[in-house]
Amino acid sequence: MTRILITGGLVITAAEELLADVLIEDQQIVALASTGSEVAAGWTADRVIDATGRYVIPGGVDAHTHMELPFGGTSASDTFETGTRAAAWGGTTTIVDFAVQPVGGSLRAGLDSWHAKAEGNCAIDYAFHTIVSDVTEEVLKELDLLTESGESTSFKLFMAYPGVFYSDDGKILRAMQRCAGNGGLIMMHAENGIAIDVLVEQALAAGHTDPRYHGEVRRELLEAEATHRAIKLAQVAGSPLYVVHVSAASALAELATARDQGLPVFGETCPQYLFLSTDDLARPGFEGAKYVCSTPLRPREHQAELWKGLRTDDLQVVSTDHCPFCFVGQKELGRGDFSKIPNGLPGVENRMDLLHQAVVEGRISRRRWIEIACAAPARMFGLYPRKGTIAPGADADVVVYDPGATQTISATTHHMNVDYSAYEGRRLTGRVELVLSRGNVLLEEGRWLGRAGHGGFLRRGTCQYLS
Amino acid sequence: MTRILITGGLVITAAEELLADVLIEDQQIVALASTGSEVAAGWTADRVIDATGRYVIPGGVDAHTHMELPFGGTSASDTFETGTRAAAWGGTTTIVDFAVQPVGGSLRAGLDSWHAKAEGNCAIDYAFHTIVSDVTEEVLKELDLLTESGESTSFKLFMAYPGVFYSDDGKILRAMQRCAGNGGLIMMHAENGIAIDVLVEQALAAGHTDPRYHGEVRRELLEAEATHRAIKLAQVAGSPLYVVHVSAASALAELATARDQGLPVFGETCPQYLFLSTDDLARPGFEGAKYVCSTPLRPREHQAELWKGLRTDDLQVVSTDHCPFCFVGQKELGRGDFSKIPNGLPGVENRMDLLHQAVVEGRISRRRWIEIACAAPARMFGLYPRKGTIAPGADADVVVYDPGATQTISATTHHMNVDYSAYEGRRLTGRVELVLSRGNVLLEEGRWLGRAGHGGFLRRGTCQYLS
Amino acid sequence: MTRILITGGLVITAAEELLADVLIEDQQIVALASTGSEVAAGWTADRVIDATGRYVIPGGVDAHTHMELPFGGTSASDTFETGTRAAAWGGTTTIVDFAVQPVGGSLRAGLDSWHAKAEGNCAIDYAFHTIVSDVTEEVLKELDLLTESGESTSFKLFMAYPGVFYSDDGKILRAMQRCAGNGGLIMMHAENGIAIDVLVEQALAAGHTDPRYHGEVRRELLEAEATHRAIKLAQVAGSPLYVVHVSAASALAELATARDQGLPVFGETCPQYLFLSTDDLARPGFEGAKYVCSTPLRPREHQAELWKGLRTDDLQVVSTDHCPFCFVGQKELGRGDFSKIPNGLPGVENRMDLLHQAVVEGRISRRRWIEIACAAPARMFGLYPRKGTIAPGADADVVVYDPGATQTISATTHHMNVDYSAYEGRRLTGRVELVLSRGNVLLEEGRWLGRAGHGGFLRRGTCQYLS
Amino acid sequence: MTRILITGGLVITAAEELLADVLIEDQQIVALASTGSEVAAGWTADRVIDATGRYVIPGGVDAHTHMELPFGGTSASDTFETGTRAAAWGGTTTIVDFAVQPVGGSLRAGLDSWHAKAEGNCAIDYAFHTIVSDVTEEVLKELDLLTESGESTSFKLFMAYPGVFYSDDGKILRAMQRCAGNGGLIMMHAENGIAIDVLVEQALAAGHTDPRYHGEVRRELLEAEATHRAIKLAQVAGSPLYVVHVSAASALAELATARDQGLPVFGETCPQYLFLSTDDLARPGFEGAKYVCSTPLRPREHQAELWKGLRTDDLQVVSTDHCPFCFVGQKELGRGDFSKIPNGLPGVENRMDLLHQAVVEGRISRRRWIEIACAAPARMFGLYPRKGTIAPGADADVVVYDPGATQTISATTHHMNVDYSAYEGRRLTGRVELVLSRGNVLLEEGRWLGRAGHGGFLRRGTCQYLS
Repeated sequence: MTRILITGGLVITAAEELLADVLIEDQQIVALASTGSEVAAGWTADRVIDATGRYVIPGGVDAHTHMELPFGGTSASDTFETGTRAAAWGGTTTIVDFAVQPVGGSLRAGLDSWHAKAEGNCAIDYAFHTIVSDVTEEVLKELDLLTESGESTSFKLFMAYPGVFYSDDGKILRAMQRCAGNGGLIMMHAENGIAIDVLVEQALAAGHTDPRYHGEVRRELLEAEATHRAIKLAQVAGSPLYVVHVSAASALAELATARDQGLPVFGETCPQYLFLSTDDLARPGFEGAKYVCSTPLRPREHQAELWKGLRTDDLQVVSTDHCPFCFVGQKELGRGDFSKIPNGLPGVENRMDLLHQAVVEGRISRRRWIEIACAAPARMFGLYPRKGTIAPGADADVVVYDPGATQTISATTHHMNVDYSAYEGRRLTGRVELVLSRGNVLLEEGRWLGRAGHGGFLRRGTCQYLS
Repeated sequence: MTRILITGGLVITAAEELLADVLIEDQQIVALASTGSEVAAGWTADRVIDATGRYVIPGGVDAHTHMELPFGGTSASDTFETGTRAAAWGGTTTIVDFAVQPVGGSLRAGLDSWHAKAEGNCAIDYAFHTIVSDVTEEVLKELDLLTESGESTSFKLFMAYPGVFYSDDGKILRAMQRCAGNGGLIMMHAENGIAIDVLVEQALAAGHTDPRYHGEVRRELLEAEATHRAIKLAQVAGSPLYVVHVSAASALAELATARDQGLPVFGETCPQYLFLSTDDLARPGFEGAKYVCSTPLRPREHQAELWKGLRTDDLQVVSTDHCPFCFVGQKELGRGDFSKIPNGLPGVENRMDLLHQAVVEGRISRRRWIEIACAAPARMFGLYPRKGTIAPGADADVVVYDPGATQTISATTHHMNVDYSAYEGRRLTGRVELVLSRGNVLLEEGRWLGRAGHGGFLRRGTCQYLS
Repeated sequence: MTRILITGGLVITAAEELLADVLIEDQQIVALASTGSEVAAGWTADRVIDATGRYVIPGGVDAHTHMELPFGGTSASDTFETGTRAAAWGGTTTIVDFAVQPVGGSLRAGLDSWHAKAEGNCAIDYAFHTIVSDVTEEVLKELDLLTESGESTSFKLFMAYPGVFYSDDGKILRAMQRCAGNGGLIMMHAENGIAIDVLVEQALAAGHTDPRYHGEVRRELLEAEATHRAIKLAQVAGSPLYVVHVSAASALAELATARDQGLPVFGETCPQYLFLSTDDLARPGFEGAKYVCSTPLRPREHQAELWKGLRTDDLQVVSTDHCPFCFVGQKELGRGDFSKIPNGLPGVENRMDLLHQAVVEGRISRRRWIEIACAAPARMFGLYPRKGTIAPGADADVVVYDPGATQTISATTHHMNVDYSAYEGRRLTGRVELVLSRGNVLLEEGRWLGRAGHGGFLRRGTCQYLS
Repeated sequence: MTRILITGGLVITAAEELLADVLIEDQQIVALASTGSEVAAGWTADRVIDATGRYVIPGGVDAHTHMELPFGGTSASDTFETGTRAAAWGGTTTIVDFAVQPVGGSLRAGLDSWHAKAEGNCAIDYAFHTIVSDVTEEVLKELDLLTESGESTSFKLFMAYPGVFYSDDGKILRAMQRCAGNGGLIMMHAENGIAIDVLVEQALAAGHTDPRYHGEVRRELLEAEATHRAIKLAQVAGSPLYVVHVSAASALAELATARDQGLPVFGETCPQYLFLSTDDLARPGFEGAKYVCSTPLRPREHQAELWKGLRTDDLQVVSTDHCPFCFVGQKELGRGDFSKIPNGLPGVENRMDLLHQAVVEGRISRRRWIEIACAAPARMFGLYPRKGTIAPGADADVVVYDPGATQTISATTHHMNVDYSAYEGRRLTGRVELVLSRGNVLLEEGRWLGRAGHGGFLRRGTCQYLS
């Protein structure tokens, strides 16, 4: 048995801030003791990490990534290898990626294919949601099987992208009904894609081809409408609902209303919606293409509402929707036609730091930082308390974080496999100093000690907000 | 020139209650004068109708009827001849019926077909809305043409009935965008038919075949959802919206919210939703089939909310959605499968009296009675002040109404061509005594003096609530 | 009998727009006939007024004026003589002023005193609300008596002005309970005066003495709070409620919510809140004092919300709260202490024209103009249809209005007895051309033909929105 | 140093459920370790408590008690000695009681008086809020001093009880403004006492003297109104607000609205509102007097809304408002006049068990049980993490709870000094087995081992929900 002892740090979880020493035996945290207590003083270890003046926090859980996702004739530029390594550099030690049901195929086939991409390549632990492209009788049965086995207990449906991932309201209802019974969680991309496609066609016909029109046609009202509709369908089905990448204040308002009614409705937003805006999408030249993602960036005034939602717990989770495409060769596919720009932004490496910046700026508390970035995603997707907290029995996924260090985000220094950063030049206070994954040091003093294949696949329980 | 003088009655319009004499020259009302004034005393006429102790009201305007509508392999049992005669018996002197775009055909074709049914057969004046079954580029152009010519300035779309009248959100958006520009009014059947069809299939599979399941599968939440969605699409398009046959309190709440925001959103309800309920739909045997219509009847507690909506003007119009099917041979098509019961109720003859009963019971004022039954539908569909009021210049469509007479509704005495009454045995206070249509007496002392062919087709202006 | 005939104009009421000739016999309108009809062609009269190209509208009803009101050690500068003459110049033919219960005295005493001021001095008809300064057992009985006799059927209470007019919630509740039974209407000045007085004291202590601080201390939230509280007290009492001079968007939102619930709650706003803003209150020097009134002017963005409220009928009435104080010698009392500036603005002469300007600018329709300025105040305070409409049986208070004439508002040309205009230099389209009060011409071709003493006291019925 | 080790239990905090051993050194918890881990296996202690099959939870924090409170000519029947002992029997190890500012005196004087009552008499730790009876300049200064020193960092004001504790809106505003600056927390009894007193007088005058009229006059609308008003005043002041003993669904709705806006507004409810109703207040004879408290019990349907509020976190805290009066000799003071019944219910001993019953019935999760009963009140009133959690560094206030034991509540077996139980005969699952207060065993195997005087006074920090 190997013992690691982290001493003298401020242990921060979603619930507590403690001056405590953390004892790790092999892959698990086994004990916490008050720093300076007699019992702590008696602890010995193979390695002692001095965290004095540092935060000791759970490794981040990023519940929304798309490594190697085929999209629009190209693929997201991070592999599971490059992407999970970048995640670890940013203090994230668990990702939940999306296996895609192939056209005409089964969820099983999608998972097999994604397992093949990930297995042996990940630096950190990983799990899979499943993207349901077509709700058939067979797929409904798979929802039961996968939830039962824990291989995938959450299933994403799309109200956008007709002809690709789109499910109509009947298919959505059927999937929700099934999950009402089996404990699975429906995740929803909530935009009225049928209406948006009309506006896309009209915009292109009018010669409005620049990236900023991507934001204009994907109208805020159409995100709010779809969010409302998804909530009502879930209410009819008696199922819970998790809305991904909420970007519009009015969509958030729909979630808040539902939650006031006591409905089991949850929401996620992403750093890009908290820190970027349509101003970025409207950057001159074709620069705006770097900021094309769906739901789109919104006008700046939405940011304050999203922060408010994070404080009021009407939004529970901040994930990245990490889906990077290089500007050169990938984003450029959409020159002259914004609808051909691959949708997605890089971010898996930046999330923990950007959210800590919000702590520095007084937008959220330290505990809320850990809650939205670690504990809540772990609870939401059945990984808690194995992931998302510092507690006896938890996996030893621990980050030593220096709250006073400063850094400047840049594509020249980041570890994601993409040729630009959406946050280029942004100066932040706070920095990851050391990262443990199940007791293994991945990162220390700026050196990478991790390895592809250390990360293992995580079976999951069901959503822990429902019990 | 023929002069008719109606003396001594209480003239009631949406705005006024006056003791006034009404002078008609040929087909028009030309003057009102205070009863007993010198000027009135000097008036002479070919015929003087003494209305002392009676109400003198505008003829009713029923903005939602379906005479001879083919539906579910059969046809609504009232022809334009029988239906308009029954309307007149009930104090209604104008109907707006729906011409249906044939599958693969044009709106023009639908109108031609409906003109052929109506022309020469109507006892009262009539106009047409158009039901848009498929929104094509050609149809969009027809929306302009028909609005311009006044042949039809309102267009009904369906969010229900997939595979029949259903339009998806993209088609709806396109039609709304067109009407945002041309002044036309989109009328919406707001139920999420895609989701409902899933529930229908599941209900039948579970052996739930009785009429009452018609009400259960057409969930209130799915009417409210569709209403919300229609409002949002109209907001995106910048167009007005008129929601037909609102039956659910929560759908009404969506309208109220939109109207509070100042949006040009309007709503109609029908006597069946104000006076009947799921109790009727659940009558034993197959009796419930008599009460199958869509949107369906709702639990009794919705009635109070609808009455409130009529008082607060969140609902503007009460129409009948008159669409009668005989119990024997028509409703019976759905024995053993509620989804095969033809949807629709008779009512064109009962509307004015039922709403007067609400006056008697203190639910609405006399002026509001006239507003929701005469003036508002006329304004909504571009017929005011020709129809819907008693004023100089208006058509002489006048009803002398005895507020103290009593009657009992019954299929044995009604004039609609249908073998049952939805209000059988209901005792009412108030009764139509005499009916004029453009100065012609249709009905007097219980005798029918009208004739098929007296009624003419009405070209219309655009919605008068938008200016 | 004298007959006047007004021919060829567009008769506009709250409900209709008609090309009609209007026949007056002595003091009343007795008949309307279609212009050009045979019957109209046969009419003869002592005087024929050609209104071709003009609007023929009901005389305005200003339901909120304060002539000769003692306030803050001075008195409103318009007497009943000067004020009613100015009203007529502006197309208003009825005012409802406020008789004030003297400290320690009865409502009777207040009415006696106000009758003495008005009788024989008014150019137009007038009525009285009563300001209740102290709710005693005796006063509660007077609420019954006055409502019964029609001498005053509406009673104003203040949640502002502690130590002067202020009633606490218990007194308000008692008065409301009484009116729930007797049909009287409680009018409320809804501002939390107790809290405001704390802020006034603190502002003055901090040296914030300029007029603009008047607006800052009378916080929007404190108008909304009081409005909400008044509504809840009325709900407890089961009484209707009329909130005077609503200026804040959030106060209006409280009314809208109550009305959505079907509560008999009504609201009035004033031209100053629709056309002026805190920008005026913050004018340099002591100019802002000209714009000191309570509730105060609000930031400019509130105007759009108030216009919306007028369109959605969440506000029913536009009155002036006419309460003029000269800048020299009166407003100046508050130099160095905004709390000593007499509260009130002149406006009785400008209301009809300013609201017509809103018609010109497309904010409201012509019919809505007449409704909010004539018909609704008449209905609200039991004067309809004697006042507020053009109909057989109505008083012949008629204005011939030239919609195309232009004018510039100025203190140099207005007829109010005050040395400034709140709308100085504002250019308007539309102008009063001729004014009749009960068949007497008050004003014609820019000449004053009226006389003090023509106007008579009006007994009133109860609020006509409650039946 | 004394060491206690609690082994094998399920440690439940607001955030976690862990199979962990808990190590106590003297008065503090110093460490947690996974049960069965090597490190835990190595721990030794003076006493080992085997908690296998039991919950190990933080001692309860009851943030609202009134021991020995003089009220209505009598005094609450529990002294600090009897009341804190009863609290411990029920698993509560901290109370926050209320020191009352004497009429004409200072907060200091109130605290001195309450310190004298409590010191040396308490079995568990205690703290004080201060009841502010009169907001003077001197009192405003004391708000600063007491918050600074931590002697009392929360201050209760009353919108009810005119002539006793009542503060008008101006005084409330001043106190709130002060706390906006100094970090203190205003607690509000939110009922419109001015209006209620009118209804009380009218009820008594009408001969409505039975206990149930206590509930009828204290109208739900008047709790909701006062709650709304308190929120708006806090918004004007820029201060946080904590509303005590919320009982009405509509008052809760006001809190929910405010929290959706991101305002720092908090709410507490009590077991009596969750488990009792107006049915109890209407018990025959004078039995209802046992259930007289303010805010009053509400109709049964409010309970579901309050539970929902606890789940949605619109209510954060469940306290008891423990204020017992014996039926004989105390409650009986109000025979023939409900307004003379002393207001208050016993409950300090029952709270933890009643809320556990809600866990058993599936209304709340185990973690939420601990949050609303232990962690949230500790955070709200600046006692966390010393109180309210099981964590290294926390006071060793620990309860070993048997979730499977059953008990029946009865006055014959309870330890509160009052002759009845509001929950007489209620059968519950779950029972306190052992209680530690700062490492001292107070209670074990049904034997009382505690002593008056063990409990010490707690200085507090400020509200921890604001940072």
